[in-house]
Amino acid sequence: MKNKISPWLKSGLTDIIDELENTYTEHGGINHIEAGILPSRKKIIEIQRQLMRIVFPGYWEEEGLSKTRVKYFLGEILHDIYKHLSDEIEKSLRYRCKMAGCKSDACRKMSIEITMKLIEELPSIRTMLKFDVAAAFDGDPAAIDKDEIILAYPAIVAISTHRLSHPLYEMGVSLIPRIMSEYAHSLTGIDIHPGAKIGKSFFIDHGTGVVVGETTVIGDEVKLYQGVTIGALSFPKDERGQIIKEAKRHPTIEDRVTIYAGATILGGETVIGHDSVIGGNVWLIKSIPPYSRVVISNPDLTITHKDEKSGK
Amino acid sequence: MKNKISPWLKSGLTDIIDELENTYTEHGGINHIEAGILPSRKKIIEIQRQLMRIVFPGYWEEEGLSKTRVKYFLGEILHDIYKHLSDEIEKSLRYRCKMAGCKSDACRKMSIEITMKLIEELPSIRTMLKFDVAAAFDGDPAAIDKDEIILAYPAIVAISTHRLSHPLYEMGVSLIPRIMSEYAHSLTGIDIHPGAKIGKSFFIDHGTGVVVGETTVIGDEVKLYQGVTIGALSFPKDERGQIIKEAKRHPTIEDRVTIYAGATILGGETVIGHDSVIGGNVWLIKSIPPYSRVVISNPDLTITHKDEKSGK
Amino acid sequence: MKNKISPWLKSGLTDIIDELENTYTEHGGINHIEAGILPSRKKIIEIQRQLMRIVFPGYWEEEGLSKTRVKYFLGEILHDIYKHLSDEIEKSLRYRCKMAGCKSDACRKMSIEITMKLIEELPSIRTMLKFDVAAAFDGDPAAIDKDEIILAYPAIVAISTHRLSHPLYEMGVSLIPRIMSEYAHSLTGIDIHPGAKIGKSFFIDHGTGVVVGETTVIGDEVKLYQGVTIGALSFPKDERGQIIKEAKRHPTIEDRVTIYAGATILGGETVIGHDSVIGGNVWLIKSIPPYSRVVISNPDLTITHKDEKSGK
Repeated sequence: MKNKISPWLKSGLTDIIDELENTYTEHGGINHIEAGILPSRKKIIEIQRQLMRIVFPGYWEEEGLSKTRVKYFLGEILHDIYKHLSDEIEKSLRYRCKMAGCKSDACRKMSIEITMKLIEELPSIRTMLKFDVAAAFDGDPAAIDKDEIILAYPAIVAISTHRLSHPLYEMGVSLIPRIMSEYAHSLTGIDIHPGAKIGKSFFIDHGTGVVVGETTVIGDEVKLYQGVTIGALSFPKDERGQIIKEAKRHPTIEDRVTIYAGATILGGETVIGHDSVIGGNVWLIKSIPPYSRVVISNPDLTITHKDEKSGK
Repeated sequence: MKNKISPWLKSGLTDIIDELENTYTEHGGINHIEAGILPSRKKIIEIQRQLMRIVFPGYWEEEGLSKTRVKYFLGEILHDIYKHLSDEIEKSLRYRCKMAGCKSDACRKMSIEITMKLIEELPSIRTMLKFDVAAAFDGDPAAIDKDEIILAYPAIVAISTHRLSHPLYEMGVSLIPRIMSEYAHSLTGIDIHPGAKIGKSFFIDHGTGVVVGETTVIGDEVKLYQGVTIGALSFPKDERGQIIKEAKRHPTIEDRVTIYAGATILGGETVIGHDSVIGGNVWLIKSIPPYSRVVISNPDLTITHKDEKSGK
Repeated sequence: MKNKISPWLKSGLTDIIDELENTYTEHGGINHIEAGILPSRKKIIEIQRQLMRIVFPGYWEEEGLSKTRVKYFLGEILHDIYKHLSDEIEKSLRYRCKMAGCKSDACRKMSIEITMKLIEELPSIRTMLKFDVAAAFDGDPAAIDKDEIILAYPAIVAISTHRLSHPLYEMGVSLIPRIMSEYAHSLTGIDIHPGAKIGKSFFIDHGTGVVVGETTVIGDEVKLYQGVTIGALSFPKDERGQIIKEAKRHPTIEDRVTIYAGATILGGETVIGHDSVIGGNVWLIKSIPPYSRVVISNPDLTITHKDEKSGK
């Protein structure tokens, strides 16, 4: 048998290697050869895991975490994050910079500054997460305590990833925040673009299918259910018909708004006024004032009955 | 370069470590320090994997499974499950117990009893899963055989996780059943609370976005499609305005009901009578009698046509 | 303590092992014992990872990829794919063949041929993926460049898995294409059956909840949003009431159709004419001509306002 296939392995595979190598030169857009090193998805996921250990201390430690160990625990993990995150950010900056053969250490310097800033923000990120966990506990009758929420709620994975990736997005780091948010999306079904601005005490129940677009602005104490889309209506184009990538394309959701399952809210000029409630499956493409309650008025169902005996 | 950053590494990082350590004391609700060991998500996922090897024997074995090996196979895996599951359950019981410095072995004893009970239920869990796999095969024309269903259907991951975690929930184990169900949710997009009571021959086609709430009761031969929510309408509150966490908040779905994609059924008093069919996207917050057929009556679509030639 | 539990470990566990072993003989449909080796999910996922390294070269390499290394890189990975994929396909063919004690090397030969064909198709699969990535870039204003799309877009995981698994499905390999597509479904929430025929420049934005059924036909330049179902309406049955598994059960979507979030299109005879736009949440079970625009005409919302001052 092995002899029979060796001709293809020798010539056929060589041919296909040549052919593929040619497509590596020809095709634009799907090759990354001789082009610098991209941030590593694997390493970014590991950094994210380490950041979670810091912001929720003791929840993921196989042997628990004692008070006396805390300083060593923090020192060890933060040194690790410092080293690896600054390396990945440097890759990202050099990738965007694209100045061939640049000898400057500007990218290195900036990557260290950005890493330091993120680490310095961790205490205030923890304050935000404290409010998010409390919002989950208040919002879900099935929750037994806050530990269960931290250990088992997809919303916490999605929201803490957002609280950690959004500062990187704001500081102009490309690729890394999106790799972080898409990893959380993959784990939870919740797709929050790292560009979205989200206030405190944010909760998403169940979460699968939620989409929150890049230029969305969300106030405090907002609650979303599964399948809610906060998206773009259409894309503003410039005079040459090109999409203007910087325009505000997604809605603003003011404080204390609740949006029930499957609702869709679209458009950069759409503002949902504070203290409003949006019912399930509602489709909204215009602003509504504060204190509104929007529901689909006629569910308009047809209910027919089969004859029980005939079974029809 | 390295010299330039060392000042921050020396003083800045030390400052932030102190600051974080302070927040570890201050914040309530998002720290788990000096507080006993929580069940390990990593170990629970591994136990779940071992349980799957037992309930679907031979499907995940790289080298196949021969009849002569079965007894050793079972003995080895069950000893492993016995040891690790009883350890994790003990952590969970001690966590709930919260009696500082308790020297009693009551938690250990109970964790062993619960583990034994789950292991003793495995044959009847297998009987239930046999009906679930048959329901999938009967319900999906794309299925070639039952092996494909076991190897590739997300419904099987979600339902077998439920059949294994629900007994732990019923026996009062906290955290572990929810970690199990959320792991399945992460893999499948199907979110079934371990508290839900589900009859035999249960099938979910595609599944992404399905939500089945904690106090749901589902009869035999029920079939759900993707995006179906069986959820809470509002949360009963006590006289002080606090949510009553024990109330039945989710619907009852009787035998032989089919619920099509995107339908939403809400409320603890809502009963879907047996042999009923709920159409796609239907929104139901009241009971319907047996043998009903509920559809959205007017899709009420507007269809306009562009002039083919002008392309408008 | 350990002495106290040993009685159960000795006798109880032995009893349950015997009981489970009995159910391994009794139950049909959920055992795979003394039955040949099934394709390994673990190995298939690893092969899929290697195929991704080939079709998007340089994107997942920790150390980057230089021009001079390309030939070795290709040779090494393709040899690896050749070996492991042909082994897994052989398992799949022998599994379907089910001729006990067959000494023929027909399954081995065919598995090698199929593997060779897939490898030979890699250059044209790359061409298709180039158009898919371009479609994503053109379709999403949030995309900064094509590298971000390859590194972070779930659509790319789902579509490239489809482009790689569909040829295996077409060549009659069972189990493997479904394991591949369900792995992608698990990662992305996008459920594309490997049987679906999909034209070039295909894009899915966000994607969670998308379902594309087995006999779906999709033209060129089609764009889907999250939560779109292209599914079966009902299953054609033969004269004995058995589902006809080969019938076309899913719609045809012609060129340049856009389908917005949450829309559902059902039925094997349903054809969406080219250059049409289907609005969000639309439910369609009949054909529409080319250049159509279908929207839900009356969102029919009820908006009420609480008295701002009283807070009611």
